[in-house]
Amino acid sequence: MKLITQFTNQLFSGDIKKYFSRNTEEQIYPSDVASILNTIPLENALATFTSFSLARKARIFPFIERFNQKDFFSSLPEEQKSILLNNLVSTDRVSFLSSLKDPDFSAVARYLNEKNRREAENLLTYPKDSVLRLVNTDFITLKSNMSIEEAIRYLQENQPDNENANVVYVVDERGKLVDDMPIRKLILYPESRHLYEIMDYNCITLGLNDTTEDAAVTFKKYDRVSLPVVGPDGILMGVVTVDDVMDASEEEDTRDMQMFGGMESLEFPYVKTPLLQLVQKRAGWLVILFLSEMLTATAMGYFEAEIAKAVVLALFVPLVISSGGNSGSQAATLIIRAMAVRELTVRDWWYVMRREVQSGLLLGLTLGILGAIRISLWQYLGWYNYGEHWLLLAITILFSLVGIVLWGTFSGSMIPIILKKVKLDPATSSAPFVATLVDVTGLVIYFTIAAFILRGTLL
Amino acid sequence: MKLITQFTNQLFSGDIKKYFSRNTEEQIYPSDVASILNTIPLENALATFTSFSLARKARIFPFIERFNQKDFFSSLPEEQKSILLNNLVSTDRVSFLSSLKDPDFSAVARYLNEKNRREAENLLTYPKDSVLRLVNTDFITLKSNMSIEEAIRYLQENQPDNENANVVYVVDERGKLVDDMPIRKLILYPESRHLYEIMDYNCITLGLNDTTEDAAVTFKKYDRVSLPVVGPDGILMGVVTVDDVMDASEEEDTRDMQMFGGMESLEFPYVKTPLLQLVQKRAGWLVILFLSEMLTATAMGYFEAEIAKAVVLALFVPLVISSGGNSGSQAATLIIRAMAVRELTVRDWWYVMRREVQSGLLLGLTLGILGAIRISLWQYLGWYNYGEHWLLLAITILFSLVGIVLWGTFSGSMIPIILKKVKLDPATSSAPFVATLVDVTGLVIYFTIAAFILRGTLL
Repeated sequence: MKLITQFTNQLFSGDIKKYFSRNTEEQIYPSDVASILNTIPLENALATFTSFSLARKARIFPFIERFNQKDFFSSLPEEQKSILLNNLVSTDRVSFLSSLKDPDFSAVARYLNEKNRREAENLLTYPKDSVLRLVNTDFITLKSNMSIEEAIRYLQENQPDNENANVVYVVDERGKLVDDMPIRKLILYPESRHLYEIMDYNCITLGLNDTTEDAAVTFKKYDRVSLPVVGPDGILMGVVTVDDVMDASEEEDTRDMQMFGGMESLEFPYVKTPLLQLVQKRAGWLVILFLSEMLTATAMGYFEAEIAKAVVLALFVPLVISSGGNSGSQAATLIIRAMAVRELTVRDWWYVMRREVQSGLLLGLTLGILGAIRISLWQYLGWYNYGEHWLLLAITILFSLVGIVLWGTFSGSMIPIILKKVKLDPATSSAPFVATLVDVTGLVIYFTIAAFILRGTLL
Repeated sequence: MKLITQFTNQLFSGDIKKYFSRNTEEQIYPSDVASILNTIPLENALATFTSFSLARKARIFPFIERFNQKDFFSSLPEEQKSILLNNLVSTDRVSFLSSLKDPDFSAVARYLNEKNRREAENLLTYPKDSVLRLVNTDFITLKSNMSIEEAIRYLQENQPDNENANVVYVVDERGKLVDDMPIRKLILYPESRHLYEIMDYNCITLGLNDTTEDAAVTFKKYDRVSLPVVGPDGILMGVVTVDDVMDASEEEDTRDMQMFGGMESLEFPYVKTPLLQLVQKRAGWLVILFLSEMLTATAMGYFEAEIAKAVVLALFVPLVISSGGNSGSQAATLIIRAMAVRELTVRDWWYVMRREVQSGLLLGLTLGILGAIRISLWQYLGWYNYGEHWLLLAITILFSLVGIVLWGTFSGSMIPIILKKVKLDPATSSAPFVATLVDVTGLVIYFTIAAFILRGTLL
């Protein structure tokens, strides 16, 4: 840690190559070096990166921010490009390639060897959220009739010392996966035992159609550190490790939250997104919401005569409609999250609806009674004069709040389910989206109830 | 998978004990059995659980929903309670105990043996979000001068075959941690080598003051599956595995999202929370927001004379203030999430403020121009008559939107940072909270600008 502080303190003093001497180089983690390179100006970072040995470059490269990787790759001497690219762990290689668009993609892809090119082309045909985008194809398989001793000898000869070796995979003659086995078992049992004796034949697998979200759920449920992905015929296609799934699922959560906050999700982290792109990602939804919210002006236009007669009605417009928005936002949050962590599915809509209608009624009554008390109290204490029909006004507010909060809760909970049903991301039903919908309809509810109760008195 | 479907299909046909025959029992994962038991009525679940062997009960118990564990524990025959409790992995034991309040806690704690009681009492003094709540104390340590052969023999004699054996820990004579080493290294190197020869002396550790969120960040950064926790003197205190941290961090994200949705976070999953508790968790914030939003009625009360003179001003109130709320909600989302994933810290406030002020200005101008066009267009096409001063009204809307969106963006981005600064959870600055704040202040901005521009004409 002291070393890292030393570097970061001197970061902006110019050329930092000299701080990565042969001696210290190996004592700093690749991911820490990458953190530093990701922070300092690109020019200095590239100069530093260039000074490293090829082996060190290969260890650091996967930790470079995805949108900078192409610059780092370009900075390599021509003869190193192909070596580095083909020696990356397959997951890192696919992740790098998938961040590129043509012509950058073609420029990089020509350094791939035949095997890796075919593999990358195959994996990149799967959707962006497919677990196959995270699959590692550098795994070692064992046969179940091997003894532990044979298995160990085979591993010593064939398996490089990396995280893929934490779990070994036992397959039959046709490559069909029979079991996954933590490598510790080869140590904890006597050498003369055969693999089929120590296997538990309990193998949790992922399929070709699983998404990274499915993978995250499976990892959590079975407490695994890596999971095999098998094809329809049971053939082992590759291995997914928990760290890659965690990264992907953090990104997914970030996207969900940003969408729920009422904007397009960012491609890059907040601090790396250029200002204009940041504005653009926000402006889209903001304009859509603004255009929809214009309907409130239209709706209120219809009630202009009523407002002119009873200006007091206008005073409570923000209070009444925001309560609908708030309760809708609560309901949407609950349902979106419960669906994301698989507590709820679309099929539970009836259960959710009953619960939310009950909640909405209770919440609406609470706010409605508070609102009515507020008006009566202000009138009674002489803080504001709502006129001779203040009691009718209080009753209007009471019923409007019940109606609007109920409606907000109902739509906030049902919209995410409907979106999911039509295969859209439930998080699109953002808090602002629900609020806007409830604002417009809430106005209609409010003025209709007011017209009904106050006709002949205020109106 | 077929077995699971078979069970779940027959779940509600009554007694399901018979489906867990000796034969099938071992073929279903403990976590799958627990999923079933978590789904069916508690009475049936307990009857089924009781029919299992003690060993099987112990494997299933950790996967039972936390708030049901105490009922499952009570259902055990008296002589099994102590055995089950003391043989749980320490993390699972502490997690169970920490979910209990007195008198339940005391009732369970008396079955603990001396060692586990002292350990639990110690770990439970740490805060709820401390990484020590997830620490596993059943780890095996090796000495660096052991040969691989000696290490393997030692492990075979002392280490049970469970996930704690995936990584071994090398300590010096005083128990100070020297290195963590994936157990694969003992297999991949020749038996005659010594541990000090194959260690990389690169050991990432967690400290006693780290939170589960810190742990999640470290796991992601260094791609580990388990991390040692050391005391101030470097003594190894325990081990945290990635699956426990993933669970904790999912729960943390759920809490964040619920708070951001404008409610108190739930203690239990949505589907397990009783209706009244669900309403209660939502009512608190909803009432606070409602009471604050009452200020809008007060604010508008001050401008009642203006509204009476120019009812047309009231028509645009929802449109104008909701735009402030929406832009504030966007900004708050971005900043809260960026702080949660450690892209931003409190110290970056000045950077954030500059960016958000620029974004706010651009977004406000966009909406303002749209709003002014809307009024002019409706007037021109004869869809609505805003009177002879429609152009001044359009200009009022333009400037109000610039002001309010700028203000919404500014407060939405700064409030989370201020909350973090005063050690509160930034997610408390929920979308509804920011919207409410901006509603009240937005009204003042709107009517003040209107008074300034329209004085002498409409007003």
